[in-house]
Amino acid sequence: MSSATPSGAYRGDDALATLLTEAGTGRSPADVRALLAGVLAAPEGEDPAAWLVLVGETLPPALAEQLQALKAVLAAEAPAARPGPAQRLADLRAALKRRELDGFIVPRGDEHQGEYVPPRAQRLGWLTGFTGSAGNAVVTSDRAAIFVDGRYTLQVRSEVPSDLYEYKHLVEDPLTDWIVAALPEGGRFGFDPWLHTIGWVEKTRAALERAGILLIACEDNPLDSVWQGQPPAPLTPVVPQDEAFAGESSADKRARLADDLGQSGIAAAVLTQPDSIAWLLNIRGADVPCTPLPLSFAILSADASVDLFLDPRKLAPPTRAHLGNRVRVRPVEEFGPALDAVARGSARVLADPTCTSAWIVDRLHLAGAKVERDGDPCALPKACKNPAELAGTRAAHTRDGAAIVRFLHWFSEEAPKGGLTELAVVERLLAFRRENERFRGVSFDTIAGAGPNGAIVHYRVTPETDRRLEPGSLFLLDSGAQYLDGTTDVTRTLAVGELDPALAAEMRDRFTRVLKGHIALSTVRFPHGTTGSQLDALARLPLWQAGLDYDHGTGHGVGSFLSVHEGPQRISKVGNTVALQPGMILSNEPGYYKTGAYGIRIENLIVVQPVEPQGALAGAERGMPTGAERRMMEFEPLTLVPIDRSAIERALLSDAEAAWVDAYHARVRESLSPLLDEAARRWLAGATAPL
Amino acid sequence: MSSATPSGAYRGDDALATLLTEAGTGRSPADVRALLAGVLAAPEGEDPAAWLVLVGETLPPALAEQLQALKAVLAAEAPAARPGPAQRLADLRAALKRRELDGFIVPRGDEHQGEYVPPRAQRLGWLTGFTGSAGNAVVTSDRAAIFVDGRYTLQVRSEVPSDLYEYKHLVEDPLTDWIVAALPEGGRFGFDPWLHTIGWVEKTRAALERAGILLIACEDNPLDSVWQGQPPAPLTPVVPQDEAFAGESSADKRARLADDLGQSGIAAAVLTQPDSIAWLLNIRGADVPCTPLPLSFAILSADASVDLFLDPRKLAPPTRAHLGNRVRVRPVEEFGPALDAVARGSARVLADPTCTSAWIVDRLHLAGAKVERDGDPCALPKACKNPAELAGTRAAHTRDGAAIVRFLHWFSEEAPKGGLTELAVVERLLAFRRENERFRGVSFDTIAGAGPNGAIVHYRVTPETDRRLEPGSLFLLDSGAQYLDGTTDVTRTLAVGELDPALAAEMRDRFTRVLKGHIALSTVRFPHGTTGSQLDALARLPLWQAGLDYDHGTGHGVGSFLSVHEGPQRISKVGNTVALQPGMILSNEPGYYKTGAYGIRIENLIVVQPVEPQGALAGAERGMPTGAERRMMEFEPLTLVPIDRSAIERALLSDAEAAWVDAYHARVRESLSPLLDEAARRWLAGATAPL
Repeated sequence: MSSATPSGAYRGDDALATLLTEAGTGRSPADVRALLAGVLAAPEGEDPAAWLVLVGETLPPALAEQLQALKAVLAAEAPAARPGPAQRLADLRAALKRRELDGFIVPRGDEHQGEYVPPRAQRLGWLTGFTGSAGNAVVTSDRAAIFVDGRYTLQVRSEVPSDLYEYKHLVEDPLTDWIVAALPEGGRFGFDPWLHTIGWVEKTRAALERAGILLIACEDNPLDSVWQGQPPAPLTPVVPQDEAFAGESSADKRARLADDLGQSGIAAAVLTQPDSIAWLLNIRGADVPCTPLPLSFAILSADASVDLFLDPRKLAPPTRAHLGNRVRVRPVEEFGPALDAVARGSARVLADPTCTSAWIVDRLHLAGAKVERDGDPCALPKACKNPAELAGTRAAHTRDGAAIVRFLHWFSEEAPKGGLTELAVVERLLAFRRENERFRGVSFDTIAGAGPNGAIVHYRVTPETDRRLEPGSLFLLDSGAQYLDGTTDVTRTLAVGELDPALAAEMRDRFTRVLKGHIALSTVRFPHGTTGSQLDALARLPLWQAGLDYDHGTGHGVGSFLSVHEGPQRISKVGNTVALQPGMILSNEPGYYKTGAYGIRIENLIVVQPVEPQGALAGAERGMPTGAERRMMEFEPLTLVPIDRSAIERALLSDAEAAWVDAYHARVRESLSPLLDEAARRWLAGATAPL
Repeated sequence: MSSATPSGAYRGDDALATLLTEAGTGRSPADVRALLAGVLAAPEGEDPAAWLVLVGETLPPALAEQLQALKAVLAAEAPAARPGPAQRLADLRAALKRRELDGFIVPRGDEHQGEYVPPRAQRLGWLTGFTGSAGNAVVTSDRAAIFVDGRYTLQVRSEVPSDLYEYKHLVEDPLTDWIVAALPEGGRFGFDPWLHTIGWVEKTRAALERAGILLIACEDNPLDSVWQGQPPAPLTPVVPQDEAFAGESSADKRARLADDLGQSGIAAAVLTQPDSIAWLLNIRGADVPCTPLPLSFAILSADASVDLFLDPRKLAPPTRAHLGNRVRVRPVEEFGPALDAVARGSARVLADPTCTSAWIVDRLHLAGAKVERDGDPCALPKACKNPAELAGTRAAHTRDGAAIVRFLHWFSEEAPKGGLTELAVVERLLAFRRENERFRGVSFDTIAGAGPNGAIVHYRVTPETDRRLEPGSLFLLDSGAQYLDGTTDVTRTLAVGELDPALAAEMRDRFTRVLKGHIALSTVRFPHGTTGSQLDALARLPLWQAGLDYDHGTGHGVGSFLSVHEGPQRISKVGNTVALQPGMILSNEPGYYKTGAYGIRIENLIVVQPVEPQGALAGAERGMPTGAERRMMEFEPLTLVPIDRSAIERALLSDAEAAWVDAYHARVRESLSPLLDEAARRWLAGATAPL
């Protein structure tokens, strides 16, 4: 799949200069080294040669080879030596003192508040050593604390020195209480206004001011001033997303959204979510792992034009042509002045308070804008997939299902032998998926939890934790892939051979309760206006009745070759006011976790569909005297992967539930068999036989 | 039950003066006439002599007789002639012109934003003739409109003249859009700040100011200035609520709440909800129909003392003694100065923005208070009933159930004859309830809907709409009572004789789907932190699956000898963040309505209870390998009334659902049989026989 150039030794900058000139690239070796600094600050991705397009579109093989060789040299260079944790903390404290600050907060997030943070913005990790995906450090002249949630209470103790940092709980220990206790009245507490939303700043400021503490927005980040060797921003090619997959041209999307803005009297919307921008402009990138997007900001004007702020070096000429002349590509340095310009004349400018940096909102206010706080205007249209996107995701799920069935067939033969480990399984599954030419990487780090590791909801296997899959145990496998035409996410819980007879009854009981909840969501019909919060309990009910539950949401939104976690809809205990609409893709993933023993989760992606009022309802509900009265919606499963029949306790299922399993399995079998060889097909027939 | 004095002719004020002096009441006939003006502006209640305590506690029979005679004379006096609707509108417009206002809003609510509005505050009705329970009129110099919701779109046309008022929809037609269209830029739009919450004012002001219209708080209500013969405020005795029923002394309640205020650094809480004040002070009253409360305001201070603002004439000496010296009874005129006093020194004062008048919040701000916006501090403790309240409500529900079973027995014999009408049924049911000595009136106007009237969700029978109960049809009966020890609310849908064979299959299908939803809520177990919004879908699912739904909430909170509709919890599609807690009483009332044909609703009151983790769960879930892991809660039905078995389609019930019906019916039979005579007991045995 990759066009990787065979790599030779690097022959030096002079030789490279000659090759660059001969190829007419207009680049110097210094340019290339600067490019590579950004390339190496981004994930490598499935194609290690993809970056070459940043130098030129068609490069002579000799040049391509030397460029890859230089990349290898730079990648192998030892990173700048990092001072020890005490020294880093002391350096930061000195920087705070120079700024007359009594305290400072170092969050885990970056300017986009996204799930993945590029190396340049991994300030919390640099300072404290903490590698988790959520947290804050707070530093004063004589105290420091790190706030993490329940997932990381053990991990933080092994990564962050207890003699330097107090450990606090991100949710249960209010940050502002700690700051108020640590700082004197009149104290000055600093923050980087790029890294916190306006909503956070206003709430925090109110709490601190009640205690007489000032919250100070820093013009530059004090931590950056002491971080020697801070990586540059990631630099990866921006590529067009084919309209055959996107289903709607960027011009049409922009016109549609701009029309809404104009009708509300809004001059422009500030977009800070890279996946929203990627959707709006039909572009993709590779700046962060697992999600194919370029980090960027944008301003959508009511005239349907867009200012796109990112490093212009990311755009090869075809991408510029794709964007067209109504999209002005501008360096990020021009974002501030552009905000000033849209604010002119007290213009009404839309910004989403839940994800827009305080820096942006403050700048708009200073420039005279009337800031209208409302949701990201791309979020809802992005969530409602169009027919081309739905066709793409169905095709992607079929191919993904075939890859997983090949894996499951292999697993069914290997696992009972007792020789598999979590890492081996992850690699084998990836290899099956890689056989697909539209595969563009995993959509998140695979969760492969053997036995007790399955009970750790956010478990990620490492060589240190890698565990053998013991015959008789349960194995939880949650994985997903990015394909050009769709994003997948599926969890299956597999019996490793025959379940241990001593535990089988309990395991099957729990597995079947989780399955019943999964089926309840799969079969529910609901009227327009229904939110995911209203449906969440259906997935939990069979567990609740037995005094059990799970501590995560039931379903998240999923993008179209974009983020595997996207809003605005979700299925969760947490209140959510977004009504489910046709075309929305969600996960359906109830679970059960027994600490120290095993974990169970059954996850399909599902898509919201209208129910044909008379036909489908009347047909499915035999004996109904008259037809339906209201327009209803239902979920169609997208995922096509068998559910382990050996873990199901049939007696716990109603006949209707068993019939759902059989019908789902029949659909899996019919959809995937044509893509499988004879042996896998035979295995699938058994795995999908009626209960 | 009533101590009504036999009434003779009124012998004149001189004779009354002599009797008053002889009895040592210290009252003049003028005092009594002033009292009676207020008494006649309140509902009569179950005991028409209850008001006599306002004159004196033990009155000689001759005086009592003359007082009742005077009351009869005054009650019979013709009310002041009301000008026609065009004149009333013209008078209001003149009053607006004198105040230099270009427009004004007349809401339906009063200063307490409650469900029932005393005659004095029925401004919307006086102006427009509209008698519905929700709406707004908006008047400008040349236009006027009335905004009502879907329940009243027909009624408003018959009550409000279309040549004077435009008809608008309360929800779908934004009020501010109409005002912006009707007023010129720079226009001055007035409102009475006592009649609108601070939340409403801020939202409306923002919308109007965007269009350059000023929202002006009027110092006095312009409508009141032209309302000749506006009734006085209602005046009824305030009586102590026995601690045997309340279960906690007012002093303990005040100490508990004051402690919370103190810990939050709050100096005082302003209470504007009469039922909260009644709960806090263990008092009851009769100022409005159906809800036994005195209209009042109060300020709870962090020192656990209370300032109570109401007409001091309402308090007989025993009630003053009950309140004690930590409750300062003050006339309503002193409320403003008292707000100034608590605000002193920039004190933090709590007010609930969803129910506190803008007048109050503005006054606090002007006096320098830091207004802390948070929920009414009485709401949650009031909602969580203590053991004495729960014992009381169980006793009340048992007696109420016995009265209804007597009624149902009578109904089963009379209804098939075809001679009953809705009004006759309402009267007969009331008579059965009146036989109970703790009965204090209905808790809401009975909804008795025969045939198509059953499909009108908020139907109230009048002589004009009174409908015969046709044999073969369905009859919906939703009623409730106030007893000293508890408040009830129950709906049963009854077959009138044998259901019409042509419609019986559909009716039974719908009835059984409603019942399945009712059972789903009755049997659900849920973990701590669960809200009613999360459970609502369980009650709708059997209807949703057939393409059906109902357009009202599934459950509302219920008070303890207080309001039949109380917060903060509810079971509804509308998001609600209040977690269900043990002791909360709710209704469970799914329904189905076929316009023009029939309506179905099955309603029990239910109370939240903890589930014993091992015992109950393990017992109920036979075959469960191990026990529950989490503390769960469940609902216990309080209502004890049989569900019409003849309307149930057994084949649509699962065995577990049928078992629930049988077990519920067995409990009804065992609880009520001891309270019934032989004939009713025999009837109940048949009505509760296993399915």
